Amino acid sequence: MTKPDDADSAAPSRRRFLRQSGALLGGTVIAGGLAGSEAPAAGESSGNLPPNVPEWMKTPGDPMGSQLYGTPSRFEKDVIKNIPNDLPQYLSASGRTPLQDLDGIITPNGLFYERHHGGVPTVDPSQHRLMLHGLVDRPLIFTMDDIRRFPSQSRIYFLECSGNPGYEKPYGKTASDLVGLLSCAEWTGVSLKLVLREAGLKASAKWVVAEGADAAALTRSVPIEKCLDDAMLVYSQNGERLRPQQGYPLRLLLPGFEGNMSVKWLRRLHVTAEPTYSREETSKYTDLMPDGSAREFTFYMEAKSIITRPSGGQRLTTPGFHEISGIAWSGRGKIKRVDVSVDNGKSWQAAELQEPVLTRALTRFRLQWRWEGQPAVIQSRAIDETGYVQPTLAELLAVRGENYFYHNNAIWPWRIAADGGVTNANA
Amino acid sequence: MTKPDDADSAAPSRRRFLRQSGALLGGTVIAGGLAGSEAPAAGESSGNLPPNVPEWMKTPGDPMGSQLYGTPSRFEKDVIKNIPNDLPQYLSASGRTPLQDLDGIITPNGLFYERHHGGVPTVDPSQHRLMLHGLVDRPLIFTMDDIRRFPSQSRIYFLECSGNPGYEKPYGKTASDLVGLLSCAEWTGVSLKLVLREAGLKASAKWVVAEGADAAALTRSVPIEKCLDDAMLVYSQNGERLRPQQGYPLRLLLPGFEGNMSVKWLRRLHVTAEPTYSREETSKYTDLMPDGSAREFTFYMEAKSIITRPSGGQRLTTPGFHEISGIAWSGRGKIKRVDVSVDNGKSWQAAELQEPVLTRALTRFRLQWRWEGQPAVIQSRAIDETGYVQPTLAELLAVRGENYFYHNNAIWPWRIAADGGVTNANA
Repeated sequence: MTKPDDADSAAPSRRRFLRQSGALLGGTVIAGGLAGSEAPAAGESSGNLPPNVPEWMKTPGDPMGSQLYGTPSRFEKDVIKNIPNDLPQYLSASGRTPLQDLDGIITPNGLFYERHHGGVPTVDPSQHRLMLHGLVDRPLIFTMDDIRRFPSQSRIYFLECSGNPGYEKPYGKTASDLVGLLSCAEWTGVSLKLVLREAGLKASAKWVVAEGADAAALTRSVPIEKCLDDAMLVYSQNGERLRPQQGYPLRLLLPGFEGNMSVKWLRRLHVTAEPTYSREETSKYTDLMPDGSAREFTFYMEAKSIITRPSGGQRLTTPGFHEISGIAWSGRGKIKRVDVSVDNGKSWQAAELQEPVLTRALTRFRLQWRWEGQPAVIQSRAIDETGYVQPTLAELLAVRGENYFYHNNAIWPWRIAADGGVTNANA
Repeated sequence: MTKPDDADSAAPSRRRFLRQSGALLGGTVIAGGLAGSEAPAAGESSGNLPPNVPEWMKTPGDPMGSQLYGTPSRFEKDVIKNIPNDLPQYLSASGRTPLQDLDGIITPNGLFYERHHGGVPTVDPSQHRLMLHGLVDRPLIFTMDDIRRFPSQSRIYFLECSGNPGYEKPYGKTASDLVGLLSCAEWTGVSLKLVLREAGLKASAKWVVAEGADAAALTRSVPIEKCLDDAMLVYSQNGERLRPQQGYPLRLLLPGFEGNMSVKWLRRLHVTAEPTYSREETSKYTDLMPDGSAREFTFYMEAKSIITRPSGGQRLTTPGFHEISGIAWSGRGKIKRVDVSVDNGKSWQAAELQEPVLTRALTRFRLQWRWEGQPAVIQSRAIDETGYVQPTLAELLAVRGENYFYHNNAIWPWRIAADGGVTNANA
């Protein structure tokens, strides 16, 4: 009745590839005569055979409710935020998501990246207020209950720091070192447009200056067009309330814009005619060009991608079939295509994109690959729905020069050695 | 330049509704003359005005990396799994997701529901094995590394216990009490079909008997059709590895089927010609009908929905605009429509469905509502893509009789009192 080949709904090309790869994808054939029997005979266990009854089946496990709020397995204790241990201070600093250890597109809240400018404030939501004033008909002050009264919406969006990575050498060793200031979640909150309409915008309103309730009072100017488009005030992330590190109890969310503009612990929206040229718009987050001018207010994070598996610090243990898996994203909208090269950029193949492909969210891509045990350089490049193609590092440097720090969206190739070790090919 | 009404892209009906509702949606108008000024004058703070500088802005916050794996705010300490404190034992028991406190469709891993039959085993992934045997050409044993070598896929699916709720009275007070054995996540793993093909199914293969590595050796028989359709072996949930309570390091995932069939801590797949009639298929998870027969192997969870806000235990503090928000789901596929009634079932309106609507995932629905401060009964009913309509409790009981326990997908109405208190209208 069951004909595995017929039952397989995978794309024909993948089916053919897997068949041609010949070797077992995984698994050890159980020694002769076992087919249909209940289990390997006692005493037959080797490294590849299961114990008839593992220890953990012989006694009851932990009772239900041992954790009223769950945590990962103790065997995953090393999957944590990636934080340098030699920083001069940790108040204006960042912690990266361990991208190479994650699957799919959702970042669990415990591993969402952090970037703070004055530490993480402990904000009492019952005391928190959002003030909306400036070029409006009715200046307003909102409690969190007020904010929750507005119609809500939920969206899956990525957030990325604009210095992800910076151009400074040495470049990091792992995917997390390079682009771990990147995460993705399902956000729930209210459309900023609705809130602004409640106050009534004057005709001269062109910018909204957002201020956070942290010790740095982080302040950014947002063009009114974005505020009336997909900007949100969010209070929940992956179902539950925001974590303190992500702006509890309220943050601005500007889909596709550089992360620091999605102001955390949001306390004030000042509607103005001009941008405010805050510290984060002058000394930070602008790009010094070769001609001495500064690129400022670039806003959108351009299309980008990274292979997370295999990636720096990992190892291919045996030749044969390997899946190449990674993530792509664009502040401009949806990812249209991701190309993967396994021959140091000489040729490229379109990767499979995991559906649904969502705008301004991470998109997981995959390519089935047979590694022959030779040295190789693998890399991915993202193309978004605007047609923009992720550039190489050399192409970026040629345009932007040596004084550039932010907004590095270069392709990052990985070098695979004959022993299977994976390292940063640009390092 | 900005005309709020023109800029609003909300549906015309909603726009009209909000305008007609007249009253402020949220927020307190700042007392005269403040428009355009920087902040309320010092000393002007009332309960509704923000302090000029809240305490948490005056000193640096917690340094970055205070938590290498993050946890929720201390102000959310009561948002935990909902676990009865008077059970005779906690090894075969369940803990519910606090649905009324959550937004969107993703359940954070820390709050995913639990149901165990012999406690939660601590499984060492390096020692864990999956055996695939029975009516196959090549019986196989897999390590976790073997499983990770297969091509992967990521899908967002709900999981629901078949006793969610049972028919026993008294019915619960909150949304979590009633249907909190329900959660939704992005799962990553391998198509079971690919793994079965690796072993080669014999023509007589009709069922796959899955066994867990817990002390209860939980065992369920799965029809081969499901195994060759969308069944998965999953190792990751919302990006990171499965939590111990969800089957770390490996679980079966059968989208839309009753939760206990998605066997956790999966150690064995036995391909057979007949189902095994395990304990969970005879003494449990079957339904005794009025004629004395047993409904067995019902598999799919039928369409269902619940309003989570406002819901039992919550309170509407003031008349005026309120959003009705809830979740709907169907084991049979996508949710096509959710109807909401605010007049005790006399009339129904179609709720707005949050896009993207995904098959066998939770779907968030919303309806904008103006509460006039009178007693009311509100409820939702889900319609899935097969055309199935969620029934009332009376309709279900009329068919299934009094001996029924599992597979209760009745509509659950909430009663709103004149003081705004919300209670279970079926209790």
